[in-house]
Amino acid sequence: MSEYTVSDYLLDVIKHLGEDEIFGVPGDYNLQFLDHITHRDDMKWIGNANELNASYVADGYAREKGLATFVTTFGVGELSGINGLSGSIAEHVPVLEIVGAPTNKVQNEGALVHHTLGDHEFKRFEAAHEKLGIKVTRLNKEQAINQINETLQYIHYTKKPAYMILPSDLVNIPVNPAIKSNIDKLFVERKFNIDKAVKQLIQAIEKAKKPVIVVGHEISRFNLGKQVETFASNNNIPVVDLGLGKGAIDETFANFVGTYNGSISDDNINEFVKSADSVILMGAKLTDSVTGGFTQQFNPSQTVAISIDGSSIYGENIDGETDFVSVLNQLADTKLNNSLPQVKVPEISDKLTASDNALTQAFYDQAMQQFIKRDNTLVAEQGTSFFGLASQRLAKGANFIGQPLWGSIGYAFPAALGSQIANKNRRTVLSTGEGSLQLTIQEFGLAFREQIKPVIFIIENSGYTVERVIHGMNESYNDVPKLRYDLVPEAFGANANEYDFINVSTEKELIDAMHKASQEPDKLVVIQANMGMKDAPEQLMKTAKLFEQQNQA
Amino acid sequence: MSEYTVSDYLLDVIKHLGEDEIFGVPGDYNLQFLDHITHRDDMKWIGNANELNASYVADGYAREKGLATFVTTFGVGELSGINGLSGSIAEHVPVLEIVGAPTNKVQNEGALVHHTLGDHEFKRFEAAHEKLGIKVTRLNKEQAINQINETLQYIHYTKKPAYMILPSDLVNIPVNPAIKSNIDKLFVERKFNIDKAVKQLIQAIEKAKKPVIVVGHEISRFNLGKQVETFASNNNIPVVDLGLGKGAIDETFANFVGTYNGSISDDNINEFVKSADSVILMGAKLTDSVTGGFTQQFNPSQTVAISIDGSSIYGENIDGETDFVSVLNQLADTKLNNSLPQVKVPEISDKLTASDNALTQAFYDQAMQQFIKRDNTLVAEQGTSFFGLASQRLAKGANFIGQPLWGSIGYAFPAALGSQIANKNRRTVLSTGEGSLQLTIQEFGLAFREQIKPVIFIIENSGYTVERVIHGMNESYNDVPKLRYDLVPEAFGANANEYDFINVSTEKELIDAMHKASQEPDKLVVIQANMGMKDAPEQLMKTAKLFEQQNQA
Repeated sequence: MSEYTVSDYLLDVIKHLGEDEIFGVPGDYNLQFLDHITHRDDMKWIGNANELNASYVADGYAREKGLATFVTTFGVGELSGINGLSGSIAEHVPVLEIVGAPTNKVQNEGALVHHTLGDHEFKRFEAAHEKLGIKVTRLNKEQAINQINETLQYIHYTKKPAYMILPSDLVNIPVNPAIKSNIDKLFVERKFNIDKAVKQLIQAIEKAKKPVIVVGHEISRFNLGKQVETFASNNNIPVVDLGLGKGAIDETFANFVGTYNGSISDDNINEFVKSADSVILMGAKLTDSVTGGFTQQFNPSQTVAISIDGSSIYGENIDGETDFVSVLNQLADTKLNNSLPQVKVPEISDKLTASDNALTQAFYDQAMQQFIKRDNTLVAEQGTSFFGLASQRLAKGANFIGQPLWGSIGYAFPAALGSQIANKNRRTVLSTGEGSLQLTIQEFGLAFREQIKPVIFIIENSGYTVERVIHGMNESYNDVPKLRYDLVPEAFGANANEYDFINVSTEKELIDAMHKASQEPDKLVVIQANMGMKDAPEQLMKTAKLFEQQNQA
Repeated sequence: MSEYTVSDYLLDVIKHLGEDEIFGVPGDYNLQFLDHITHRDDMKWIGNANELNASYVADGYAREKGLATFVTTFGVGELSGINGLSGSIAEHVPVLEIVGAPTNKVQNEGALVHHTLGDHEFKRFEAAHEKLGIKVTRLNKEQAINQINETLQYIHYTKKPAYMILPSDLVNIPVNPAIKSNIDKLFVERKFNIDKAVKQLIQAIEKAKKPVIVVGHEISRFNLGKQVETFASNNNIPVVDLGLGKGAIDETFANFVGTYNGSISDDNINEFVKSADSVILMGAKLTDSVTGGFTQQFNPSQTVAISIDGSSIYGENIDGETDFVSVLNQLADTKLNNSLPQVKVPEISDKLTASDNALTQAFYDQAMQQFIKRDNTLVAEQGTSFFGLASQRLAKGANFIGQPLWGSIGYAFPAALGSQIANKNRRTVLSTGEGSLQLTIQEFGLAFREQIKPVIFIIENSGYTVERVIHGMNESYNDVPKLRYDLVPEAFGANANEYDFINVSTEKELIDAMHKASQEPDKLVVIQANMGMKDAPEQLMKTAKLFEQQNQA
């Protein structure tokens, strides 16, 4: 282990990009590689309970930190994590998966080894990943350093995930340690000739008398929220964000109107979008779950779009270079020629009076809006939690993680743990439902082993309420087993003094529990929030109606 | 729902093949289909905690019952289950996955709907499944009935898994109920002209003076154990089985020698194989984990192989039809011309004296051999459990489930639940380790909801001992969180009177716990068996040594 190896170089590049922890599950084709992690002082191995959870934890970590890596074993491990990695593609999250594979000798011989289909084939799994649009790299001895550089550059510049096969005979191949000095030259800012593109965009935007900016998730991933805010402030343009992109910009900034969700948004938000003569999409994707089922009140002929896939004006792609980051940076410095009146955003009242009434989703959502503070990341599961919380305003400095495009239930809990591990000085707040939590619940073991202290709200509403409102309100397939959440922490290894469990059924109990959680930053706090089986956020009710219609058309 | 639909027909075919329960996870692209399950009187929907678990439960169920079906939703659901379905390919298990998909309209428009990658593509997921060698069928309106027939015939005749996409607009397409009367004609016994093949096989086998039969998993899947026994008895040929195939034949039958595992087998088993002049493989695959890392003491030039992929003599494929089932059926009726002496198998002593000594793997394995009775199915996780238990002799009538080729940790627990659901009159006994159990532990929720009563042994040996003995004995990546298994049942919804938890650390305590479990058939019994971190079965130690060498070659 004293020699400098391909593995050490790979980890040095990852470390250079700011990653301090590596996730995953050990398996006999990756153990030798894991030695290189555990033997470092500047990185930590955090083992997960299974690979799907690892892929979710990595996604949540990467959304905070800009890169996450998880390690799996050949076949069984990588296929268990493939759903999570696909979510990272869908939602554009920079995650690297390293797959420990049998030696080249074993693969070339087509040996009947375990973790294969017993058909002498060793390229099936990477082929499956390719079909999902994931960048696949199979390290080879001659090209390994270049392949590592190229893969990490791809992730760094595109913020998309990648998948790397590391045959176990390559793990300890020695390389010249002098190559380390080149690492910081790999990730320099790139220059693009975007003047022409920006000029066309500005011309189009200057024609607008009533523009509105719609912000999406790509702004989060490239950390361009400040640029959007500056451009909007300089030019008096109102801004909305989408649920797929919430957290990208400061929702208390003067021009921020609210979170738009197609025609089912609040009236005062709708008004800004409906009456706009020009809609400027910034890093936004108009998917069903964040447009009230495609009910956005504008069309391509009035849309200017700036995204990682290029820019377009009224539906026509712009010629020439349109590098997303460069365009946004230049727009931030731009003062338009038209002169628009200062934006007046609607006042929102967040006064809330708690009663002894039974807790409802509506009250819960408003209480969460008050509870989330500057140093919180709110992670909302794609059930009633997301549909209710995406339309609440986030405090200045607060972050938001959801997964409305991929929408894989069970994602939010591990993602919240990843977020908390990435940001130990902040506190992650998870809102999930009992139906979703069960999919990935074993990651409580990691939470207590790592001694992290998030606040976890579990909405107990007797099953998959998000599905019930779409179809089968009273059907047994929407039931789930009734767990004892009070026992869950200790079952998964908590000591009694490391956590608090609070069970709430009324408005007042919820508010009291939130106060208590705030006063216990040194404990992982689980709050079971009991609500009615049929009680769902209004925006979910409306969306669900549309989904069911579409499912039968 | 009163009309007879494509969905009803699909379920009628499944029911005809003997399946009574359908597994899976609801999602908004499959809810309408699930109605057709819950509205039947003759089938039951059993919802799982996640899709990976569903795929494992289905695999365990199918191994007992000959067919299992699980239902997932598009994208997120199917990809979460893809590892389990791949295991069913590797180990040749007849499982059908039905994936509820968006409507054809949505797909044809390339809409930006949830559970896609947001790239307007709807065929990525089926393409990934195809790359894994899974039979893929996308139902269409015109051909749906034929496609259903063809898919279920494929599963029935090959015992391989298949994957079916059901767009949600097809769910309620009406079909003529008269087609039901054709269902039983779909699965008639097929006739093959195998006389020539069998003649060649017999000629080859008759040349042997000291033959031995090696039985593999394909004998289990096609339920041909009796045919093997009859052929062996009629002709005085000794029989061994492989770990990948254990349970296929009665291990108490007169000619049965033991479970062979390459050169690391017990001496008296080795002797039969090493000294054989002809080895007859029956439905056997010589994979690393069941041949002591490819140390089998015979080579193709002395091997006659009969398998689902055809038959071969001394490495040369036989021409003409070699249908596996037909060949085995005909061999069962065959009396060879050579006359071999009666087989004398080694006596095994299973006398066991329990002391107050700390429990060891070696004692545990012997105690399990005594504990498993005629009406048990023993499910052994691919950790220390499999390596220790595969070489123990099974009682007459007992069944065995392992997964030594695919070897996906976490498989055994859900597979055991599937086995128990398939066979409510038997009792499934699971042996797993705490490292593996955590991957799929939430399926305890299903166990208590379904009120099934297996016996579950959890080997608590401070982490992934199977990995430790391969590499990294003291490395932290082989640690796992320490769970409180005494709290797990109630955390996952058990009432106090529905289960028993017993914690054992000595030989006597284990034996006492086994007695107690036998006396509590009406309870789910969890036995935590504490063992040393470095204590592993001898055959694992030997195999691990070989694996590590191969990993570095």
